[in-house]
Amino acid sequence: MEKKGYDDSKIKKSLSNIKHKLVVLSGKGGVGKSTVSVNLALLLAEKGYNVGLLDCDMHGPSIPKMLGLEDKKPAPSEAGIAPVLALPKLKVMSMAFLLQDRDSPVIWRGPLKMAAIKQFIGDVNWGELDYLIIDLPPGTGDEPLSIAQLIPDSDGAIVVTTPQDVALLSVRKCINFVRKMNMPVLGIIENMSGFKCPHCGKNIDIFKTGGGMKASMDFKVPFLGKIPLDPEIVNTGDSGEPFIIKNAKSDAAKAFTEIVKNIEKIVNKEVK
Amino acid sequence: MEKKGYDDSKIKKSLSNIKHKLVVLSGKGGVGKSTVSVNLALLLAEKGYNVGLLDCDMHGPSIPKMLGLEDKKPAPSEAGIAPVLALPKLKVMSMAFLLQDRDSPVIWRGPLKMAAIKQFIGDVNWGELDYLIIDLPPGTGDEPLSIAQLIPDSDGAIVVTTPQDVALLSVRKCINFVRKMNMPVLGIIENMSGFKCPHCGKNIDIFKTGGGMKASMDFKVPFLGKIPLDPEIVNTGDSGEPFIIKNAKSDAAKAFTEIVKNIEKIVNKEVK
Repeated sequence: MEKKGYDDSKIKKSLSNIKHKLVVLSGKGGVGKSTVSVNLALLLAEKGYNVGLLDCDMHGPSIPKMLGLEDKKPAPSEAGIAPVLALPKLKVMSMAFLLQDRDSPVIWRGPLKMAAIKQFIGDVNWGELDYLIIDLPPGTGDEPLSIAQLIPDSDGAIVVTTPQDVALLSVRKCINFVRKMNMPVLGIIENMSGFKCPHCGKNIDIFKTGGGMKASMDFKVPFLGKIPLDPEIVNTGDSGEPFIIKNAKSDAAKAFTEIVKNIEKIVNKEVK
Repeated sequence: MEKKGYDDSKIKKSLSNIKHKLVVLSGKGGVGKSTVSVNLALLLAEKGYNVGLLDCDMHGPSIPKMLGLEDKKPAPSEAGIAPVLALPKLKVMSMAFLLQDRDSPVIWRGPLKMAAIKQFIGDVNWGELDYLIIDLPPGTGDEPLSIAQLIPDSDGAIVVTTPQDVALLSVRKCINFVRKMNMPVLGIIENMSGFKCPHCGKNIDIFKTGGGMKASMDFKVPFLGKIPLDPEIVNTGDSGEPFIIKNAKSDAAKAFTEIVKNIEKIVNKEVK
């Protein structure tokens, strides 16, 4: 399908400098996958790790906006394209950086997306990284398939879901997809799990709660944690001010911190 | 790419019996596109129209579950595959009906999805329909592109969004995509717009509100209406009992009814 074929040795070289590769995916869209990726990346970078964040959503790249990096451009250099810095230790690459107009749709079929993903790994100067977080678009189509094939030695998949049954239906498909790709499942994160009324303080289960835990037991994979619904996450995502930094004491921030600890534990155990 | 080529005259024949074709899409996943499609289809069928509902999400088909049709199978017949009946006047087709195991992922790249969509239009015996509602997966990739090419004479696109800025970023891409495909934009629906605490009755703007209206003004396209967030929509979606029928008096049901009236108005004006 591809004409000359991309020089895959560049991909291998890039990946060889990266200790842990975490693939964030979901069966269904809108479960907060990008929000989770952004906040995990920020927390890991704040802990002192060198972190890369690769936005593989070609049609709806939202990570630059969430990080307030919308007007930044990656700079070309001899060592490859320099990713955009969100923090001194957090490098970001996204299709959004390359679009001339942020309202332009990327009308691409699969093969073009595969080619772009290859360049995002092989032509970007990621340098030495402790963690590369790869944020995939939802579903089990071209992009996840490409990543699974290009990164056969990833530490595994982090599956994000919301708690309602309709979402869990897709999680189950997603986990089976990951397994068919011979990728380990690092664990499940349940997002938008429970909500407290800011006026009266009572709990409201908008999208129910507990489904992610149930799926983790059904599939015998770790449950990494649940993150409550918090309008502040929506606001900070919109304004480009990282939630985790602005709201370090909120329930949601504590949940993210716990999840990062769980990921570190699992990843380091695997390395032994 | 396709070997022998599907007999496209079958697609034309199927479509020639369908008065109005409405394409439901969104730039971003998880905005409630399938929920909107299901409830619009139910309302139109209840009004006495002959309605078809085509689920084009190959990776995460959720419409059969939402309608309580998960265990149904479309029957083959001489006149083509008979779609599943949700109501006497509502015919449904979805990839979910064809999977042996509902947890199996559909690991397909674009060309296979294009082939399946062609069959869903050309080989399914839709018969005479007043409305065919086509529910697309999010984004501007293979499936929306295929539908735009296969149905050049659709009445137009219904763009579903949630109100927060990050979602609206994708709406703008989506509308530009629809326009590039020379498809008319029927209008925008703002979903999960505002929320009332079930305990204290106060308003909580979880995903903010008003962004859909703003986008409709920016792009000079109709605003079809906004639907409030209602946990009952999540519950009925999960249990397969149509929301609109079980909760006819709720604010969300009234919103859906208004939206259907707006669509009827626009579509009938276009026919003149």
